[in-house]
Amino acid sequence: MEALYSKLDAVYDEIVEIRRHLHQNPELSFEEVETPKYIAAFHEKLGHKVRTNVGGNGVVAYLEGAHDGPTVALRADFDALPIHEETNLEFQSVNPGVMHACGHDGHTATLLGLAKVLNQMQDELKGNVVFIHQHAEELPPGGAKPMIDDGCLEGVDVIFGTHLQSQTPLGELNYAKKELQASSDAFEITVKGRGGHGAAPHNTKDSILIASQLVVNLQQIVSRRIDPLDPAVISVCSFDAKGPYNVIQDTAEIKGTVRALSEEVRTQIEEEIEQVVKGTVMLSGADYDYDFQRGYPVTINHEEQVEFAMDCAKDVPGVNEIKEVSPIMGGEDYSYYLQKVKGAYFFTGAQPEGVDDPYPHHHPKFDIDEKALLTAAKVLGKTTLEYMEQN
Amino acid sequence: MEALYSKLDAVYDEIVEIRRHLHQNPELSFEEVETPKYIAAFHEKLGHKVRTNVGGNGVVAYLEGAHDGPTVALRADFDALPIHEETNLEFQSVNPGVMHACGHDGHTATLLGLAKVLNQMQDELKGNVVFIHQHAEELPPGGAKPMIDDGCLEGVDVIFGTHLQSQTPLGELNYAKKELQASSDAFEITVKGRGGHGAAPHNTKDSILIASQLVVNLQQIVSRRIDPLDPAVISVCSFDAKGPYNVIQDTAEIKGTVRALSEEVRTQIEEEIEQVVKGTVMLSGADYDYDFQRGYPVTINHEEQVEFAMDCAKDVPGVNEIKEVSPIMGGEDYSYYLQKVKGAYFFTGAQPEGVDDPYPHHHPKFDIDEKALLTAAKVLGKTTLEYMEQN
Amino acid sequence: MEALYSKLDAVYDEIVEIRRHLHQNPELSFEEVETPKYIAAFHEKLGHKVRTNVGGNGVVAYLEGAHDGPTVALRADFDALPIHEETNLEFQSVNPGVMHACGHDGHTATLLGLAKVLNQMQDELKGNVVFIHQHAEELPPGGAKPMIDDGCLEGVDVIFGTHLQSQTPLGELNYAKKELQASSDAFEITVKGRGGHGAAPHNTKDSILIASQLVVNLQQIVSRRIDPLDPAVISVCSFDAKGPYNVIQDTAEIKGTVRALSEEVRTQIEEEIEQVVKGTVMLSGADYDYDFQRGYPVTINHEEQVEFAMDCAKDVPGVNEIKEVSPIMGGEDYSYYLQKVKGAYFFTGAQPEGVDDPYPHHHPKFDIDEKALLTAAKVLGKTTLEYMEQN
Amino acid sequence: MEALYSKLDAVYDEIVEIRRHLHQNPELSFEEVETPKYIAAFHEKLGHKVRTNVGGNGVVAYLEGAHDGPTVALRADFDALPIHEETNLEFQSVNPGVMHACGHDGHTATLLGLAKVLNQMQDELKGNVVFIHQHAEELPPGGAKPMIDDGCLEGVDVIFGTHLQSQTPLGELNYAKKELQASSDAFEITVKGRGGHGAAPHNTKDSILIASQLVVNLQQIVSRRIDPLDPAVISVCSFDAKGPYNVIQDTAEIKGTVRALSEEVRTQIEEEIEQVVKGTVMLSGADYDYDFQRGYPVTINHEEQVEFAMDCAKDVPGVNEIKEVSPIMGGEDYSYYLQKVKGAYFFTGAQPEGVDDPYPHHHPKFDIDEKALLTAAKVLGKTTLEYMEQN
Repeated sequence: MEALYSKLDAVYDEIVEIRRHLHQNPELSFEEVETPKYIAAFHEKLGHKVRTNVGGNGVVAYLEGAHDGPTVALRADFDALPIHEETNLEFQSVNPGVMHACGHDGHTATLLGLAKVLNQMQDELKGNVVFIHQHAEELPPGGAKPMIDDGCLEGVDVIFGTHLQSQTPLGELNYAKKELQASSDAFEITVKGRGGHGAAPHNTKDSILIASQLVVNLQQIVSRRIDPLDPAVISVCSFDAKGPYNVIQDTAEIKGTVRALSEEVRTQIEEEIEQVVKGTVMLSGADYDYDFQRGYPVTINHEEQVEFAMDCAKDVPGVNEIKEVSPIMGGEDYSYYLQKVKGAYFFTGAQPEGVDDPYPHHHPKFDIDEKALLTAAKVLGKTTLEYMEQN
Repeated sequence: MEALYSKLDAVYDEIVEIRRHLHQNPELSFEEVETPKYIAAFHEKLGHKVRTNVGGNGVVAYLEGAHDGPTVALRADFDALPIHEETNLEFQSVNPGVMHACGHDGHTATLLGLAKVLNQMQDELKGNVVFIHQHAEELPPGGAKPMIDDGCLEGVDVIFGTHLQSQTPLGELNYAKKELQASSDAFEITVKGRGGHGAAPHNTKDSILIASQLVVNLQQIVSRRIDPLDPAVISVCSFDAKGPYNVIQDTAEIKGTVRALSEEVRTQIEEEIEQVVKGTVMLSGADYDYDFQRGYPVTINHEEQVEFAMDCAKDVPGVNEIKEVSPIMGGEDYSYYLQKVKGAYFFTGAQPEGVDDPYPHHHPKFDIDEKALLTAAKVLGKTTLEYMEQN
Repeated sequence: MEALYSKLDAVYDEIVEIRRHLHQNPELSFEEVETPKYIAAFHEKLGHKVRTNVGGNGVVAYLEGAHDGPTVALRADFDALPIHEETNLEFQSVNPGVMHACGHDGHTATLLGLAKVLNQMQDELKGNVVFIHQHAEELPPGGAKPMIDDGCLEGVDVIFGTHLQSQTPLGELNYAKKELQASSDAFEITVKGRGGHGAAPHNTKDSILIASQLVVNLQQIVSRRIDPLDPAVISVCSFDAKGPYNVIQDTAEIKGTVRALSEEVRTQIEEEIEQVVKGTVMLSGADYDYDFQRGYPVTINHEEQVEFAMDCAKDVPGVNEIKEVSPIMGGEDYSYYLQKVKGAYFFTGAQPEGVDDPYPHHHPKFDIDEKALLTAAKVLGKTTLEYMEQN
Repeated sequence: MEALYSKLDAVYDEIVEIRRHLHQNPELSFEEVETPKYIAAFHEKLGHKVRTNVGGNGVVAYLEGAHDGPTVALRADFDALPIHEETNLEFQSVNPGVMHACGHDGHTATLLGLAKVLNQMQDELKGNVVFIHQHAEELPPGGAKPMIDDGCLEGVDVIFGTHLQSQTPLGELNYAKKELQASSDAFEITVKGRGGHGAAPHNTKDSILIASQLVVNLQQIVSRRIDPLDPAVISVCSFDAKGPYNVIQDTAEIKGTVRALSEEVRTQIEEEIEQVVKGTVMLSGADYDYDFQRGYPVTINHEEQVEFAMDCAKDVPGVNEIKEVSPIMGGEDYSYYLQKVKGAYFFTGAQPEGVDDPYPHHHPKFDIDEKALLTAAKVLGKTTLEYMEQN
């Protein structure tokens, strides 16, 4: 692996350069235009076969090894967020209100740097590499599903990927044997009462009161109905029933998000919400609309593959701790890949050195330590080569 | 009327004596034995025709006037309460835990005293008097209804009655042209969930939580669904779901009372409660039993008769103020008489002289000023004679 | 009074013409420009002394009688509502989105017609008349208060006024001896929690949940804390906490209205709301802002004056029924006049003939029967003359 | 180990006999009299040093091995439950209302059988064995703590124990590396309102309504305030506010249980409950008492020791599956031993053969497969011998 490591060390400056270029020119989910062009051009220059507009704005590049062997997919996402950057970095976003505040710029730079090095090692490769550059991870329904539908996993035997974490120390990797990230669903409920004069409530069906009861009643799904050992979240995040101070509203609309770590719990929550809604509006003789939109499924690692990757990572330069962690309740559409092929996803510590209390993801001052990109490239690179060796 | 007044003055000592005898020997609703015997004996001694065991423990006595004319009924109730007296009066109750704490002893003494005087005036009477001595006013379903069913109002043209009030000044009468007292109903709801271990709520339907939500949800019937101009009360007064600290209960039982001033509101509340119960248990997939027991209806005066009585009262000695008042939310089965014949019910102030902050009814230290009995007798007596005169 | 009646009959066509002119040219509260000019011009043409811009856009006109006597004020309001008319009347509003949907056009036409007739009768008048043409009744803080502050009641002995009612039969008058209309206050509560990611509620203080509990908890003020015989309404009419489906909101804002029939209840509710808010945010460790804005006070008639007016009305041509009614929960700034001088306010039935289910006030199809204007003018006119006669 | 296994096979019939004897003669927690006598006699007959009345009704027996080495403690609990047995077994409980419905009879029989066999192997033993027969596991504060305080762990290097599970297949062992069972705390809240007549709620502070709101509000601690990845349960299991249908209660008392898997969460819940109580009573101007009684702490295995035990178990005859499982929310005072010395606790499958849907623990028809006792004895025996060998 020394060859891999030294070649990656050699392209580190370029990786940083790529990351900063992307950081300065962020594009929103589903609105990516320049970023995929940039990525495609990079791979084309290396001579890789490239497919663009895969499932939307996705880019897939192919590197065929000199020797037969398994096909390993590596995935990096490249979309940015609707956040106005406040870092004051010299390569700060030039697109007002748009920012790479989740590290996808780093994911892409890592993968492109690694692609260059693996390309250099083509003669030794005992298998093929598929570089999956995914758009729109931040915005359900996401880019992973349409890219898969558009064939990005065809011929792929295994997939690996990582997410940089600004609040995990540099040099630390985090993984879970099974569930790593929660499912992320959205719901919307319209309470349909009957409006009227605020002085005559008896002639109305008070939609604000009914929706308020609903918000209160929904709490008991998590507190009473879900197995306490199954993590679950139901958050009502929007309550829309604005009006004049003296007119009872016809309707009130609430929206929220649901997180779970198993399909069973997800389905149970979808059903329990409707049960609570039905009873709550019924007690006031009102009506409702209920819409439950499934977002990303639970991200569940394949145990053998994640243990393989973490085994590979043990002696990678720059890695000094590997921790099994509890899942996080945030969602990730990497989950779709893991539903189709074996593979693993893990977190790479990228806490800026010298910063004790780093900003969280999605914060206007979010920042990462770029040395994490080199570490991530080495771990993914070694895992790819080892996998080819052993399979 | 001077004859009436002076004859009543003459029997005042006896009225007081009767009242004290009854006070000392109180009997619970539906358990009256000695009191009706005492009453019947009194009337028999006067030569009145007497019916006993009317609709239970009721007594009805008849006085035929020398001249033709209308038949006027006068009603007094005679049951006591399950309260342990703490007045330290010399004629304090000798029955532990039973007390005339609502003034029914005074009502009966008033009526017996008046009966004696009207009997003396028989030759002048231009009509007949029916003395209705009612048992069991304090305990629904009450004595009025069975007494009526047993014929106590047969031949009656009009009915008058009064209730002594310990917190209304002596000399003051209170009346309402229509609604004087509320209906009084009882409800009972059993929430049927599914018990289980306190550590595993997801395997249960938590009846305590459901019943708690129910108590909260019931509030909105009065606050939102009843016309704000229609007084209404729904009180949950009992919540029975006692158990060990770690076992979720199968069922929870709540009981309460409903007060209203119209049949429409009463019916609406009965229905609204069920609506709220249905929706509330449904949202948890639980079940319920619901029972609504109608108690006394609203006591609604006949406007013409109550104005007649108050007109009569104006110059009665001892009466110094007559006030139209708002209804009170307590119930009274005099309401049944007023549903059958014309008539009136009013309150006679009986606040003990020199007492600024008199005890309320149903209090172990409840007391009245006995002079109010004389006033009440004069008002009822004059009203009876005037009614005969004018009809 | 025959002279009064026949003179009013003679100006009826003009009254209708005025009403239709005003109806066609409605102006919003506090934005009245042409209407007060029109009114002032009318009075000036009659030779009345006129004050304009009284307390804003108000107009006051003075008619001095030939003989000494009391000064009687008559009040009519003249502002319109922000409603887009849908009546298709030929004199439908020409101002889009503005409509006389509450009958103030009729009030003003009535008063102008009556002014013309009383002017004709000046030689016989045993007192003076003050015509108070009030702006901005529909929008608190209203026009009455500033007009009073600007002296419109100076020298006034008594005030009379009426409101046309589209859902009360033509020929019927409604009154109350004391409370006729409720107080109308506004409150605004901001729940200040702490926002965050919808997947991590434990790091937030969920303002939507807290505000929802608040809406539910507020119900118990009316259901439990206010005397059931005191009508009261607390309506939350606006719940503003709109946001993305997965971000817990920092703050939630609710607004609503309070109605009561006594100052005591009004004050109690203001305090009880804060008690409920305090406890509710405290249980979540959140914070709040609370603002309670007093609007119009309770409209309380002076018993003697309202009985006087209704006595006068008994044999007025066009009046065929006079009913004592329960108060209504809507507010009216006529209340301010009645706090300063004796007087009365009552309702004049104006249900369009042949219409069984007339539209309510504030409805885009609201309409009245113009014959009610003549009746109203006759009642107010006779009451004025009789009052002068008797005082 | 073959010697151990064959000796245990040889005493199996006696183990069964002991178990049936204990099953037939169950004794309630803290009321154990005959059971400890029986246990003590058994050990004394083997010549073991025995301490009785250890920390109450506990029994500790000591077996000194021929060779120096570590001291291994083995624990079995022996109390029964207040449940009336309905199994119809021939050795059914002869004490009405008392039943071994949790398998403690089996635990004790297993340990006594193993004691007999280890006694036979004394010459080979490379260390000592302490047999901890614990009373009162079922009833907090439990027997473990006083037994430890009374010295039962003195000189002990490591402790092992197991619990039979009626719903886990025979031959299967379940374990967790860290948390195996939840903490179990109890709370009691008295809402102190002000009682009064059900028809006059405005003169009261309705304790039933306040306590109902409290039950509802407590739900949000688990749903909103505890990290969704930290399992937690708060169950209100008793609501005591029984009374007549028309009298508002002065006070309402609720009781419940709290489960958690960490001390931090336990402490957080204790504090959050008080926060919710404070705010909830405050919004009604009421008062409260709050008592939080800590019960058994979380049962947390020592990773090294539990892995050691499960390694030992792998090839034990009768064991055919060893599963790492999620913790269960039920509590166990074995937790106290693990706070003092290293050790492990695990579950031994005891599902009756041929029964598809076995009764749960604490059920009147609870039953186990007695063959599990032999398996448990072999696993504990081998673990003891191996531990002595290796330490």
